[in-house]
Amino acid sequence: MSTSAKTTDRPPTEHACAIHRSLDLLGEKWSLLIIRDAFRGTTRFSGFRDSLGVPSDILTARLATLVGAGVLERRAYREPGARERSSYHLTARGLALKTVLVALQEWGDEFVPNPGGPVTLVRRAGTHEHVALVFVDDAGTPVPPAAPA
Amino acid sequence: MSTSAKTTDRPPTEHACAIHRSLDLLGEKWSLLIIRDAFRGTTRFSGFRDSLGVPSDILTARLATLVGAGVLERRAYREPGARERSSYHLTARGLALKTVLVALQEWGDEFVPNPGGPVTLVRRAGTHEHVALVFVDDAGTPVPPAAPA
Repeated sequence: MSTSAKTTDRPPTEHACAIHRSLDLLGEKWSLLIIRDAFRGTTRFSGFRDSLGVPSDILTARLATLVGAGVLERRAYREPGARERSSYHLTARGLALKTVLVALQEWGDEFVPNPGGPVTLVRRAGTHEHVALVFVDDAGTPVPPAAPA
Repeated sequence: MSTSAKTTDRPPTEHACAIHRSLDLLGEKWSLLIIRDAFRGTTRFSGFRDSLGVPSDILTARLATLVGAGVLERRAYREPGARERSSYHLTARGLALKTVLVALQEWGDEFVPNPGGPVTLVRRAGTHEHVALVFVDDAGTPVPPAAPA
């Protein structure tokens, strides 16, 4: 069941809940792993395919959905002697998904740990200081975790 | 293709990447929407089914996966005159997914907006002040968004 045609033609804004709307665009494993690889610098179909081991037909469909959703943009490139191909690059909307990926990463490192310890820590560009996600109020003051509202 | 038996028997820790491990447990739309409903207070099979419109067989499989993953716990209850049934409750590991849901919610409200505006804002328990997710360094100082590392 592919939703690529639907999301390309019309963003799925029919749900009042923003979580539901986000997941209609992103809610299966491959989409978020493609976005993870894009953050790591992967741009080419073969790069995503080799990194993820995802079947080519699924990768084609997911890339089309993410381009249609405005998360990735497609650019043309041509290697010497080869036909023109597409590369895929995060848009501003795609870059804004960093919060989602870091939230998943922090949760996975705490609750589904790797036997060898965390592999990737999120660090501040330039200083390489470790950074983490926290809740803050409108004055920027950190708010401790609470039970669900 | 169900992974519920696998995740019940053995957490999928084979991937070095914490994002991949998290998505092996959570990476499709229904699982995260079930967790969203659990945060809103839904506990019964019929409540999840009626809220989400998810087919019963998929809901049964996803609830089993989330219980096996330690995100939800199953408790027994019995209405007068009815057979014993199960209810589903977030564990500590499930409550820790709030960051992931809020990251998805903030992204959806910004990039896949609802025509009527945001429906749910995240507020601090007690004061009802608005809260948001930000990156901070180890001293708790907010770090501005940066390009991907």
